[in-house]
Parts: sequence; structure tokens; C-alpha cells
Amino acid sequence: MSRSRLLFELSGADEDVRFSPYCWRIRFALAHKGLTAGTVPWRFTDKDAIVASGQGKVPVLIDGDHCVFDSWAIAEYLEATYPDHPSLFGSPPGQALARFINQWTGEVLHPAIARVVIADIPAILHEKDRDYFRTSREAAFGSTLEALGAKRADSLAALRRVIQPLRSTLTAQPFLAGATPNYADHIVFSGFQWARIASPVSLLAADDPLGAWCERMLDAYDGLARAAPRASLPVSA
Amino acid sequence: MSRSRLLFELSGADEDVRFSPYCWRIRFALAHKGLTAGTVPWRFTDKDAIVASGQGKVPVLIDGDHCVFDSWAIAEYLEATYPDHPSLFGSPPGQALARFINQWTGEVLHPAIARVVIADIPAILHEKDRDYFRTSREAAFGSTLEALGAKRADSLAALRRVIQPLRSTLTAQPFLAGATPNYADHIVFSGFQWARIASPVSLLAADDPLGAWCERMLDAYDGLARAAPRASLPVSA
Repeated sequence: MSRSRLLFELSGADEDVRFSPYCWRIRFALAHKGLTAGTVPWRFTDKDAIVASGQGKVPVLIDGDHCVFDSWAIAEYLEATYPDHPSLFGSPPGQALARFINQWTGEVLHPAIARVVIADIPAILHEKDRDYFRTSREAAFGSTLEALGAKRADSLAALRRVIQPLRSTLTAQPFLAGATPNYADHIVFSGFQWARIASPVSLLAADDPLGAWCERMLDAYDGLARAAPRASLPVSA
Repeated sequence: MSRSRLLFELSGADEDVRFSPYCWRIRFALAHKGLTAGTVPWRFTDKDAIVASGQGKVPVLIDGDHCVFDSWAIAEYLEATYPDHPSLFGSPPGQALARFINQWTGEVLHPAIARVVIADIPAILHEKDRDYFRTSREAAFGSTLEALGAKRADSLAALRRVIQPLRSTLTAQPFLAGATPNYADHIVFSGFQWARIASPVSLLAADDPLGAWCERMLDAYDGLARAAPRASLPVSA
């Protein structure tokens, strides 16, 4: 397979700091499929660079002649295009259930994580992205970033309640997908990887049983996630 | 297969009113597998009748020589014991993901439904069960049933937020398991069936897109869920 493959990934001011949870899903999915891809650092305001995709967000995957965007659509594309590579879903019912994981993560888990880490993000962004980030996120949350930062302790407690179904599932089995991870694990862990890279705050208490699954995901795919550069941030009080 | 099979199911004062969501999961699972079973009506305080199971809750399934309890364990037992019948999970990863659905339903969806319907339940119980039910549920919720009933409108609004990931998933595909239902759908729909049988309150607004999935589940397995007797309750204001 010599098809050229490029993944546009959100980057911080330091272009090696790649913190988008949606981009991480596709990094994991490519590794799971045993596919390599070059990556292109991209900032929120680099709309022109991905104009060919017909929209303004990453991840965008260029796979030979194909340009695919939206993490779920990319995962489905990879599964359909590379059926002889390890499956991202295991079966059609597994793919359908992964969609619920996808929706729960986007609608429940990510907002809960965002409330904890979002105040840390402007500091790691390229200067040209900061106004865009602040304006769009403050509109989405109906709150200033500073006000969200001030409520961090409450948000962390709320997050730790929200993840209870993950905790009880992942103490009964090694991965969401069972004995080995699949795209369901990629979806959910990418939210934890986002926080790990972009914020000094630990989402989990030291004794949280979910920590063992995070360690397994950091080890998976030859330590792909563990090797990723993290933002240099002071530990907040 | 002439093995004798018996399912102990929670019943109301009217023994045909079977409202337990955990028992409904197994009714669906048996139908999915094409297995028949006699059912035994059981009340909360009939501990002696299931003492052979070594615990005090239903569903309990007697399958020939085997006595199995706990809905998840029964589903796994049926899948392992009847591998040539239609699969409840589709694949090992599908089974693993169904466990997340199981945990989310038990820890998030069911408590949210319970807050809406629980005040209606004593009226449909056998008289001998009412003290047990009130005492155990008021302890679990830290509230009297009357106080929960008084907050029903708020609880209904909260439930309708909690089900957003179901709503977005089930507008993108016919069932949680994809084109046809599997045990993941049994788990989640049984919560709606519980409310449908035990309470006059509609969990969904008339225009909720999740209603179409409920109708599909009521039609599934030759209309199994639609045919079930419901409690005779006045429509509350």
C-alpha cells in the first residue's frame, strides 16, 4: 500500500502539541488499522488550508484521492476502505453501539471534561487562534473562560460522577471493546488524552480504578499516546 | 430442545402486570434467541420462592438443571449456552460494548426514569409488598415517595436531557444495534417498558424522535412488549 495519506491535526503554538480529542481518535484508528499517515499541524484559524474539504474543522484525512472529514465519518471510511486490516468495530452491531459511545462522549463526557480544562487552553494556543477560541467557547458555554476556571473544583467533581458507567464497565473488563481496544476505546480515551496534553489537572483521583484503563490506553499501539508531547504548563494551585 | 425453562418475574397485585425492567430484558433476550419459557409471577417479598438461587431478586431463570440470576449474567448464559441461536451481541466487542450500555442504563437512565414513575408504583403492588417497596426506595433516594412525586415535572425534564445520546444515536440508525435490535436495545427499551406498564406518565414528549424507536421496539418480536398488560391507573394531572 503506497497510497499517500495526510492527517490535518489541531496544534498549539508549539506545533508538536496536538491536543484535539477528535484528531486523537483518528490517530488511534490509523494505528489500529496499521496505516501510516503524515500529519499536518493546523490551527483553528487556518481555514484556507482545509477549504478543499468543504468545511472548516479538523480532523481532515487525505487518503490518496479521497478527502474525508468528521471523525465518525473518517472511522467509517477507514473500516469500509480497509476491510482486510484489523476491524475498528468487530461487527456491524459493534459499529452501531460505538455510535452511542460517540454520541455520549460528544454530548456528555466532552462537555464535562471541557469545563475542567478549557481555561488552560488559551495559554497553549498560537496567538492568532486565541480570540477565535475565546469567542467561540464563551458563546458555547454561556460563560467567560475565567468564570469556568473559577468553578474548576465543582466541574471536576461533576466529571467524576459522569464517568461512573466507564468506571464500572472498565473494572469488569480491560477495554470498552473487551480484551483489546477498538474504536470505542479510541473515542473515549481521546477525551482523557486531550486533558492530559492540554492541562496540568488530573481528571482522575489517584485511586480511581479508571486509571488502570488509562494506563492500558497509554501503552496501546506501542505507546502512541504516551509518547505525545504535552503542553508545558505550570501546575495550577 | 425440550428443556424446561422457567422465568421468575416481578408482578404487581395483578399478576399479569409485569413491570420490572430487568425481567423485561430477559423476556426480550429469550424471544431474540427463539426460546420459550414459562413465567412465574413473583412479588418483592416472596424471598422463599427463589431461595435456591442464593439471592433475593428477580429475574431468576431456571433452564433445565441450571439456575441463573442477575439479568446480565442470564444474558451471557443464554449467549454461551445457545450459540446456534441468533446472537444477543453480534461479536465479542459488541458484547463488551453492551456492558457499557448496561452500566449506563443502571446508573444513569434507570434512576432518572425512577424519579418520574416511582410514586405511581405502590398503587399497583400487592399489598404485602408495599412496606418493603416504600422503605427500600425511600432509603435509596433519600426522599419520601410523595416528595419524589411532587418533583415529577423537574424529574421529567431531567430525564429528557439524560436521553439525548439515545435520541441522537437512534435518529441516525433504527436500533442501538443497527438494522435490527439486540441485547443493547433490550437493556435500554426495558426501562421505557417499565414506565409504560407501571405509570400513566409519558416519558417522551409527543414530538420526541426517540418515540419512533420505542414504536419499533413495541413491534419487535411479534409485538411482545406491546401485548403486555399495563397497570390500570388514572391519568395524573
